[in-house]
Parts: sequence; C-alpha cells; structure tokens
Amino acid sequence: MSSQSEKPSCLVIGAGGVGVITTYSLFNAGLSEVSLVVRSDYDHVVEHGYSIDSCDYGIVENWKPHHLFRTATDAAKSGYFFDYIVVTVKNIPDGPKSGTVHEIVRPVILSNHQINAARTTSVVLIQNGLDIEKELFEHFDPNHYKLALLSGVQLIGSTKVSTGKVVQIGQDRLSVSPFDSKDEAALEQAKLFASIYSNEGQNEVKFENNARHTRWKKLLYNAVVNTTTALAQLDATRCLKLSKNGTSTEQNLWVPGMMEIIAIAASEGVVVEPREMDFFLNFTKTYIYKPSMCVDYEKGQLMELEVILGNPLKIAEKNGVPAPTLFVIYQLMTILQGKTKERRGLIRFNETTKEVETVVE
Amino acid sequence: MSSQSEKPSCLVIGAGGVGVITTYSLFNAGLSEVSLVVRSDYDHVVEHGYSIDSCDYGIVENWKPHHLFRTATDAAKSGYFFDYIVVTVKNIPDGPKSGTVHEIVRPVILSNHQINAARTTSVVLIQNGLDIEKELFEHFDPNHYKLALLSGVQLIGSTKVSTGKVVQIGQDRLSVSPFDSKDEAALEQAKLFASIYSNEGQNEVKFENNARHTRWKKLLYNAVVNTTTALAQLDATRCLKLSKNGTSTEQNLWVPGMMEIIAIAASEGVVVEPREMDFFLNFTKTYIYKPSMCVDYEKGQLMELEVILGNPLKIAEKNGVPAPTLFVIYQLMTILQGKTKERRGLIRFNETTKEVETVVE
Repeated sequence: MSSQSEKPSCLVIGAGGVGVITTYSLFNAGLSEVSLVVRSDYDHVVEHGYSIDSCDYGIVENWKPHHLFRTATDAAKSGYFFDYIVVTVKNIPDGPKSGTVHEIVRPVILSNHQINAARTTSVVLIQNGLDIEKELFEHFDPNHYKLALLSGVQLIGSTKVSTGKVVQIGQDRLSVSPFDSKDEAALEQAKLFASIYSNEGQNEVKFENNARHTRWKKLLYNAVVNTTTALAQLDATRCLKLSKNGTSTEQNLWVPGMMEIIAIAASEGVVVEPREMDFFLNFTKTYIYKPSMCVDYEKGQLMELEVILGNPLKIAEKNGVPAPTLFVIYQLMTILQGKTKERRGLIRFNETTKEVETVVE
Repeated sequence: MSSQSEKPSCLVIGAGGVGVITTYSLFNAGLSEVSLVVRSDYDHVVEHGYSIDSCDYGIVENWKPHHLFRTATDAAKSGYFFDYIVVTVKNIPDGPKSGTVHEIVRPVILSNHQINAARTTSVVLIQNGLDIEKELFEHFDPNHYKLALLSGVQLIGSTKVSTGKVVQIGQDRLSVSPFDSKDEAALEQAKLFASIYSNEGQNEVKFENNARHTRWKKLLYNAVVNTTTALAQLDATRCLKLSKNGTSTEQNLWVPGMMEIIAIAASEGVVVEPREMDFFLNFTKTYIYKPSMCVDYEKGQLMELEVILGNPLKIAEKNGVPAPTLFVIYQLMTILQGKTKERRGLIRFNETTKEVETVVE
C-alpha cells in the first residue's frame, strides 16, 4: 500500500457527466489527491482514461485522476483515508436500498473510522433537493464518526455522451456550505473544500454559509420547471411556448408553483425573493434544454422526485402552507415514478388481481 | 337519383370504432335508412364491407350500411334528405378549422335546407364534453334551418383495429336527450332517435331529458381520469395502483378533481351526487384500459381537451368556483396538446427565435 500525500484526499462517488467534471476540477486545481469511483466504465477508463470536451477546461484526452476504484467498497479497502467523500450520484430515497446515499457512503465512512477515528470525514452532497442530509444524520452519529456534512449546489451543463467521454457545455458553478450553519468544523471543511475546488478563471466556486437558502432557491427551477418537462417529455422552452397562447405555462403553472416554493421557504424562515424567479424563467426562454427529470424519465431511470418535490411538500403540510400547484404536480409525478419502477422491475403489477405485488430490493 | 324510403334517414359522420358500431346499431334495428361517411377506408369498405366482432352483435362479415359516402360533401350532393346527422368524430375546437363540427356538418345542413326547408334536421352529437352545442347554435340559426340539436352520451368500448375491421368489447349504452330541455321539437326527435337506435337485448339506449346532467356526470371520468392517463401515458388502473402507496392518485388527485367537477356543476344548478364517483372509480379498478385521451396522445392525435376540461373550467371561473386540481391538470394538458400540434405541423416552433411562428390552417 502506497503512502498518501499530505494534501487532503477526495473520493468522488458517481462518474456521470457531473461527477467526472467535479473530479477533474479537484484534480486540475492540484491541491488534493483525487480518487473516483467508476462503475460501468472502469475497464475503459483504467486503460484509456477520460476524453473530455469542456467549456471550462478545453479538450482533455486520456486523463485519469490519481486513483480509480470500481466500487466504494474497493475504495474503502484501499487503506486510504478520504477527507472528502464527494457524492454526485442522484438522490433517490424511494429507489433500491443499495442506491441510497447512506448505503453508498457507508463502507468509506466505516473504513475512515477504522483508519483514524480522530480525523474528520467530510461528506459533500453535490445533489439537488431538500433535507438530503437528514438520511445521513439518521444513519451515522456525526460525533462518533467525526462527520462534517457539506452541501454542494451546482449549476453545470455536462453529459457523459459515451463510454469514457464527457462533454461539458455549461460552466461549473458550485456553492459550498455546511448543512448546519452553526457546525464550526463543517464550516472550516466547507471553506477548505471551496479552496481546493477552485480553478481561477475556469470554474466558479463560492463558500456560502446558507445551504438552506441556496437549496430553496434552486427548487424554484427544479420543483416547478424540471417536473413539468418530465410530465410533458419536452424541453423547458417548448413547455413555455407551446402552451395556451404561449403564456399559460408561465402565468398559470410556473409562477404560481414558484410562489408556492417561496411561501413554503418563508414558513421556515428562509427568504427567497420573488425576483429570483426571473433568472430561471429567463433561462428557460433562452436555452432549449431538457432538464434532469425529463432526461431520467425518458431514459427509464428513477427521478429525484422525493428530495425535489416530496420533501418541500412535507414542510408545506407541516406548516400549513397551501401549495395546490405543487401538490397536483407531485401526484402526477408519483405515477410517472411508479411507472418507471414497474419497468425496472422494482415493483410488479399483477394484471389479474390489479394489485402491486412485490417490492424487489 | 333513387327515391328514398319512408323511414327516417340517418347519416353517420365518423367511421371510427364508435361510428361503425353506431351505424350498425341503426342499421340492425331496421327502422331507418342508414348512410355512413367513410374517409380513409372508403374503397375497402365499398368492395368488402366491414368485418365486425361485437359483444353486442356477434361476428358480422362483409357488412355495409344502405349508403356509403367518401365525404359529407358527397353525401350532401346525393340529393337525399337526412333526418338525422349523427356526428361521432372527435370534438376538437382548437384543431384545424376543417375538423370543427360546424364545418363538418355544414354541407349536409345546407343541402337539407335546399331539398326541404320545412322539414326538421336533427344533429345528434355523440361526443364527449360540455357546451359542444354552442358552436352549432353560433353558426346556424336553428329556426332558419329547422334544426334540432340532440345530445348523445355513449359508454362503449369499440376500436377500429385495421382497415374495415372493428372490435367492440364493451356494450353500447347511449343516452339521448335534446340539448335544450324545453325544445319540444328536439324532444320529439330525441325520442324517435332512441326508438330507431334500440336493439332490444343487444345495445341499451335511453331517452332522457337531462343532457346537461348526463354530460357533467361523464366529466367525472373524462376531466379527471382520462386526462391523468394522457399525462402518464398509462392505463387508468396503473395510474391508481402505481401511485404512492397505491392510494395517492385516488385520494389526492381523482377524488379532489371529481369533487371540483361536482362543485362546478352545482354552481350552474346541476346536481351530481358524490356517490356517482364510485361507479367510475370502481370501473378503473376493474378494467385495465387506456381511455381516449391517452390513446389519442400516444397516437400523435389531438385530444378533446377544450370540451372536456377547458369548458368546465370556463364555467368555474365565471362562477368563482375553486378548481385547483383541474386547473393544474389543464395547464399541463395544454402543453401536451401544443406538443401534438407542433408534431402534426399545425404550429411551428422556431428554435432560433424561440417563438411559435405559424399557425397552418
């Protein structure tokens, strides 16, 4: 076993379009030792490395991070301590148990604890949605494991177009915060992560101690626009322009839905200004783009429905905030999610009894 | 030109699965002279007739009604007076102008008027939705043309499976009423139509003087269940059972949506009892079935959105009845309808200007 450098060590889990660019950003900055868990493309990447066409970094050929692992368990067995476990997989709490975040990071948290129980492990969730940290707090005592939970909210346009090949068309802008704004250790870890992630003039990374606000703000887009595009299986611009008079989606669906997000956020003391809506509305009018839920649904993959829409609606219910637009969208989306679960064999619908029979784990 | 019999003469316009069985029902009863407008299958049907596999009438081979026409204009040129113009095409007021009901029936109303201005022409709209008669009243003075407008609300499961071949799996149950319950002439015509349509022990036809009530009642299903299946592209049973806990669609979407229909109907004095919901809810739990809007959307055809959901919502708005569930479903459905319009070339979306450019008529 080789000894590790003195630099902080990062393990990125999730080698999709976003995960690969995230890994490259850390690697290119040169301030950390960078490992990546690559599942399906492992053999190809070990042999050929990645081929990247990036608006931030240009053409990069045959690139590999410092270490590659086939699974998080392999990474855990490596004997390395990973200061940052960076999670870029989708967050699907209603999907197979093996794909939940706490299961994914478990082996590495346990091996870190075994290697050095006194050293802080930061888990950076670069994922959409709300209350995604709760699952980790429920499964791991942060004091026992010396965990710092960090929130990463990323705007990026990046796609894995084929095996080992990634195309990035939208600049990587990352906001890093502790989930708990009063957690001093997490605060320090977030600042450090922002510094080792920064590539001046290329990507854009900000340390901000307002995870909750940043996440609510991004929900303006994800809870409303992203969901709509999945239901219509259509890019966001067409969802706007092909609606009645070219205006009904904006006036009757998206603005009301966004105002509901603002009201729910306000009910827990987070102020999102209505003018923030303009950024996302203008974005949908400018770029013809299919957001993640539309892409996932069309690919037959589960969507991040619960963290993007289910959790905000739980807060609305708890605080008595009316959210009729989001509520109806959510009901429809659960049908789409159920349809995907049946198609993936995660549930089975018996056409004779007309009942859902089996949940396969 | 052959002379006509003394029996009433019926012209059915629309030779889909429903139209063909409707035509056969009239023919088989033997009390009227029956003509059918067949568009795409005309040559085949003239040569071979229809092949019908019907739960009401058994196997019927090489059947033709008394007269076949390629278009309504051809029927108008035949010199026949048609006592009943029976319309079984879809009602799509937001579609191409040539497909609107008033344009479809125009040549026959005009030729009837020319042949015998003193004789009543009944137009029987066997179609879904609300306020579908208004379009006809706007375009034709009922006194001048001696028009009686009749409402046909049909429950039937029938599909044209290939050229000239129709399979009927659900019994034909038709309710016939005058649209205007005080129109004595229409009342008489509706009674007569029910009598010439009836095939004892086979189909089921009722004269009822409550068109509005019957139409609101059927909207419990069409405005709520039918629309949902189009958005999910899934049969109605799965829309129920694949939702959250297998219950969220019924509890959070369909029952609230149906209660909104009941409230809107009540706002104009039509009483639909909440227990009527049970029939439709049980139906969706019993038969695995894709309703018309789902089928139309999947086939790339326009849906009867405006008459099924747009018109009830106009009444809700006029009478100040809250209908948040139906409202959100409608906004989403207009996007689906716009998507179909673009795919059919009825509108064009310019990806450079990001605007809808052209409406082709």
